[in-house]
Amino acid sequence: MAKMCITVFSGSIDRLTGAAILASAAAAMDMEVELFLQLWGAYAFKKDVIKENVHFSEFKEKADEVAKKLQELNIPPWYEMLKQAKESGKVKVYACSTAAKIWNASKEDFELVDELIGAGEWIEKSKDADINLFV
Amino acid sequence: MAKMCITVFSGSIDRLTGAAILASAAAAMDMEVELFLQLWGAYAFKKDVIKENVHFSEFKEKADEVAKKLQELNIPPWYEMLKQAKESGKVKVYACSTAAKIWNASKEDFELVDELIGAGEWIEKSKDADINLFV
Amino acid sequence: MAKMCITVFSGSIDRLTGAAILASAAAAMDMEVELFLQLWGAYAFKKDVIKENVHFSEFKEKADEVAKKLQELNIPPWYEMLKQAKESGKVKVYACSTAAKIWNASKEDFELVDELIGAGEWIEKSKDADINLFV
Repeated sequence: MAKMCITVFSGSIDRLTGAAILASAAAAMDMEVELFLQLWGAYAFKKDVIKENVHFSEFKEKADEVAKKLQELNIPPWYEMLKQAKESGKVKVYACSTAAKIWNASKEDFELVDELIGAGEWIEKSKDADINLFV
Repeated sequence: MAKMCITVFSGSIDRLTGAAILASAAAAMDMEVELFLQLWGAYAFKKDVIKENVHFSEFKEKADEVAKKLQELNIPPWYEMLKQAKESGKVKVYACSTAAKIWNASKEDFELVDELIGAGEWIEKSKDADINLFV
Repeated sequence: MAKMCITVFSGSIDRLTGAAILASAAAAMDMEVELFLQLWGAYAFKKDVIKENVHFSEFKEKADEVAKKLQELNIPPWYEMLKQAKESGKVKVYACSTAAKIWNASKEDFELVDELIGAGEWIEKSKDADINLFV
């Protein structure tokens, strides 16, 4: 089965939305999708952050306009897209164990995370992917 | 033929310059090159934005120094590099149809864009690429 | 031998740390690892910048908290991780020759850099990599 692996370094909701759209599309096409959350990515998946986070990576002055437009177009928040994509059983989310330590977090402190793994395990998983991205 | 696919999420001219240099080099080496413009990438290709945009993703305090130096070295703006690369016939630029909706834009509102496509079509195109990048 | 290629565009220490963790993990698993430094990546490897740089790409207001936590967890700075990974002989660092010109720098002005190469040479090296990332 074709596979997409995304290293999610960013915790900005604009980049997370871009990644979630690609992940959902890949899962809808029957690809296996795996995400590995590094520093800010792990931060953004924390239960106490995930719905509160409004951080944009670029053009912060246009954040409100984009957020409003996404709502008008009925595009769900990035974490809802991922949640729906996970219902297919084709999407796995791993948080980096080092990032978890940085945030004093265990698996239960994250939303949507299946497992904490090390960078070596991630390399092992991603080296045979058809699409590798760093977001 | 070898293929490079770049998901252009960023609309910052520093990252766009980095992507354009890689795209031009790949086209010059006879690779097929395909770009998919997400949120800020699509914004940056809008006809009313493309030449006016001065947004940098990092070290904004050094933007003027870098812009001046690029001129001294006769490095064309990122959109000129892509325009020249497109003359080879090896470079295709797709804007994400959702991003187009966010910017209330049709194909004619963008510079250098060949077609609007959905994320699923992009996954289909990029899953057999030799190089996949997310910028 | 499996190969990972990272185009290091960013000069932010958070993204560089993410990249260094992946590069170290890949080298520890006997993969060949190659880095290509574009604009800010090349800047961050300059001898007069490498240890002074405190630039974060995201959540700048949390930079101090993360920096302190990395120290507590005994995670070495990104350049120390790369230095150690290079001792395996499996990691090569190339700076983009255009970026070197932008910074008026020759190979000797960079730390950890093995060679200056053009974008075409980088495409040649990276097109058969198992993992390609743009950071």
